[in-house]
Amino acid sequence: MASPRKWLLCVCIIFSIIIILPLSDSFSFTGYAQSENLRYLETAKQIFRKGMSEQHAFEYLKTITSVGPRLTGSSQAEAAVELTRKLMEEMGLDNVHLEATEVPHWVRGEAEEGWITSSGSGTISVPVAAIGGSIATFSEGISSQVVEVKSFIELNKLGDRAKGKIIFYNKPMDPKLLNTFQAYAGAVAYRVRGATEAAKHGAVGALVRSLTLRSDDYPHTGLMQYDPGVKKIPAACISTRGADLLSDLLKKDPELTFGMKLSCADLDPEISHNVVGEIEGSEKPEEIILMGGHLDSWDLSPGAHDDGAGCAHSLEAIRLIKESGLKPKRTIRAVMFMNEEFGGSGGRDYVASEKRQREIHLAAIESDRGGFLPLGFAVGDAQTAEKFKKWEHFFQSIGMFWIRPGGGGVDIAPLGQQGTLLIGLVPDSQRYFDVHHSGKDVIDTVNPRELELGAIAMAVLAYILAEEGV
Amino acid sequence: MASPRKWLLCVCIIFSIIIILPLSDSFSFTGYAQSENLRYLETAKQIFRKGMSEQHAFEYLKTITSVGPRLTGSSQAEAAVELTRKLMEEMGLDNVHLEATEVPHWVRGEAEEGWITSSGSGTISVPVAAIGGSIATFSEGISSQVVEVKSFIELNKLGDRAKGKIIFYNKPMDPKLLNTFQAYAGAVAYRVRGATEAAKHGAVGALVRSLTLRSDDYPHTGLMQYDPGVKKIPAACISTRGADLLSDLLKKDPELTFGMKLSCADLDPEISHNVVGEIEGSEKPEEIILMGGHLDSWDLSPGAHDDGAGCAHSLEAIRLIKESGLKPKRTIRAVMFMNEEFGGSGGRDYVASEKRQREIHLAAIESDRGGFLPLGFAVGDAQTAEKFKKWEHFFQSIGMFWIRPGGGGVDIAPLGQQGTLLIGLVPDSQRYFDVHHSGKDVIDTVNPRELELGAIAMAVLAYILAEEGV
Repeated sequence: MASPRKWLLCVCIIFSIIIILPLSDSFSFTGYAQSENLRYLETAKQIFRKGMSEQHAFEYLKTITSVGPRLTGSSQAEAAVELTRKLMEEMGLDNVHLEATEVPHWVRGEAEEGWITSSGSGTISVPVAAIGGSIATFSEGISSQVVEVKSFIELNKLGDRAKGKIIFYNKPMDPKLLNTFQAYAGAVAYRVRGATEAAKHGAVGALVRSLTLRSDDYPHTGLMQYDPGVKKIPAACISTRGADLLSDLLKKDPELTFGMKLSCADLDPEISHNVVGEIEGSEKPEEIILMGGHLDSWDLSPGAHDDGAGCAHSLEAIRLIKESGLKPKRTIRAVMFMNEEFGGSGGRDYVASEKRQREIHLAAIESDRGGFLPLGFAVGDAQTAEKFKKWEHFFQSIGMFWIRPGGGGVDIAPLGQQGTLLIGLVPDSQRYFDVHHSGKDVIDTVNPRELELGAIAMAVLAYILAEEGV
Repeated sequence: MASPRKWLLCVCIIFSIIIILPLSDSFSFTGYAQSENLRYLETAKQIFRKGMSEQHAFEYLKTITSVGPRLTGSSQAEAAVELTRKLMEEMGLDNVHLEATEVPHWVRGEAEEGWITSSGSGTISVPVAAIGGSIATFSEGISSQVVEVKSFIELNKLGDRAKGKIIFYNKPMDPKLLNTFQAYAGAVAYRVRGATEAAKHGAVGALVRSLTLRSDDYPHTGLMQYDPGVKKIPAACISTRGADLLSDLLKKDPELTFGMKLSCADLDPEISHNVVGEIEGSEKPEEIILMGGHLDSWDLSPGAHDDGAGCAHSLEAIRLIKESGLKPKRTIRAVMFMNEEFGGSGGRDYVASEKRQREIHLAAIESDRGGFLPLGFAVGDAQTAEKFKKWEHFFQSIGMFWIRPGGGGVDIAPLGQQGTLLIGLVPDSQRYFDVHHSGKDVIDTVNPRELELGAIAMAVLAYILAEEGV
């Protein structure tokens, strides 16, 4: 064995030459070193250093998730409203206030159950969860034979065979898509419309494979929709392992039955609130750059990524700007929207408020794709994104990679209808659907550095837009 | 509340226009669409689709980590040698064989203990772990007053005050560095040389703040070194929370004592093995493109990221090439190196073997920075990296971002001394030191998709190099 000294020298050389070199150009801005932008470069560096040293985004996320799941209408959602209002006041933001929005109040009720009874294997419990908005089953549950389909086309071919059955939509997300949101978009229709389409064919229940790329025991819920005039039947999601087991057992025993007990209920709507705070612009206070996420979450976990992260991003971004002593020309506003998950009323009521009549929203940046490593910004149409390219190097210097055409999310979409430029923070999506709408969306799955990098990027972009306009 | 139908339409529009658009250019190759490269483009796509559909990298990682921690000289390390040899044979690789290398056999011994005894707080247990290569304490432990330093300069200024004391190196990794390996490089010297430098000043022990950017209760071990002729004193790492507690208590009670009990021991060296398998080149079999990681790990966890991931990457990459029916002109070889962590003998003995005399290693690709989202390849010097830029678009199409100058890791460094082009797979580093060398480096911290993307990238690069040469 050669001596450890030589080996350590070798390690030393490797660190200096090999590992550090590839990122040594982090703060070089060749190709965009015009003097008028040196100030932004210095500001980006300053915000980066401050953010990475202090990492308050993770502390904000701890506060938000500390109340637990925040489904619209729940006391936890209201607690989160109060906590974030308090955080904004403690930060010394201007014009901190709440804006009312009516929200649904659906509750899951007591423990849910799902079970397969087959001739070969007896009765086996599987993890299920009611899909948001579903009606309950009878109190003793329902039990019926099952028909497995991969699509609505297959459903439509069933004819009478669907009658009295539970329709089992077993459509996996496509693992071959790099952008997991694309894979989600390709399968989410069965969760949203599965029950109502099944009911049209006389089915008594709908069971939907969970929307995740992992094989595990967690049901992933989300919103569903009943069409007016179509009989309402109960709908549940089943974990991916449960779905695979059911599919396997169906091949051996097509006559097996599936049982499920759901005790969810729709209560009266409640009044909840968007939480708003800002740094008032020094020259054009009526022109607004908005940053936001949504406070409400699904009820199976405290929604750390969806969308505690987006709220923490926005709060930390506005703190970084304020505490860096920056005085933006235009107003930078943080909005914690209520009710993205159960109908999007917060975003609509924000735009409809009479307060908006005296305001011009130039741009809105939404974070609602998790607290993972931020890759880039999705910015308006191709022409607008091209204009933003001149700033790409700023964001590359703080760890991001690109600016591309695209937009934000559900909360700011109504602003877009009024001409506001919509921007989305785009973190890497590989891990998002591991946790999305399931019991796994907890703070332990969030890395404080990845989260902070998103907040830093939003702070830098919001500040530049507040100075430059759109 | 507006109707759910409108809201769902809105969601639908957002998905189609906003979320999917930013990545819709995934497989476009503008600027590098020359016909001679269409084959590589098609191959990259094919490997990507196969990899993401099958995701065997995670299965290989399960197998490797199933044996537990794999410290050199341990029976688990030997079990991993056998398991990976078997995997290569089952894969139908050519010339599967083992190559011997002598490895140290240091063992941690029984449960370790650390405790702070201060006037105000009594005795408090804190998490410690012997640093790899440390001698044991007396069987009842040692206990002594503590001097906290942040650097060797501070140590050198202590003079007689170090005598008979435990030197507590409380130097945190710098959170302001985007590349966490740079932050590691700035603090690792205290772990490696802390004991021997402290001993020169008459200290009786060394205690080193764990090398992680998280605040938690996990000690992070690693290798240390005693200088010849300097008294050997025991050295332990302490969790970051333990280090912060000790530092706080020292401010209140500078006379407090720190106790630690370590029962580690250096046993006789053992003979272990590198594991080698390949796809023999169809035209120039003697010219080799090597891919590798290291099988050994530290002993506090099964080393899922360090470096189970690198082994899984290499195994999956060579499987993807083979099962895609590709017949590379040059030989593509996977090497599971033994003993990267405890002296690097595997890499040196690989180069020194007489088998190498009939071989020319054109390039070696190492994966030893974890199984996270792959960002790019670090490739040789600036000139070489520039040449590789023409292939950057291939890798951008499979989710990576860049090719930059840089290199591999410890295992392939000896090949570099012989002129082989060294290449490192560079995943994102934000989460790496959360787990590195600690009890947290377990398979649950690995995302199968992130891991697979690294294997796919290595497969594509190895295949292109095997066709094109360097």
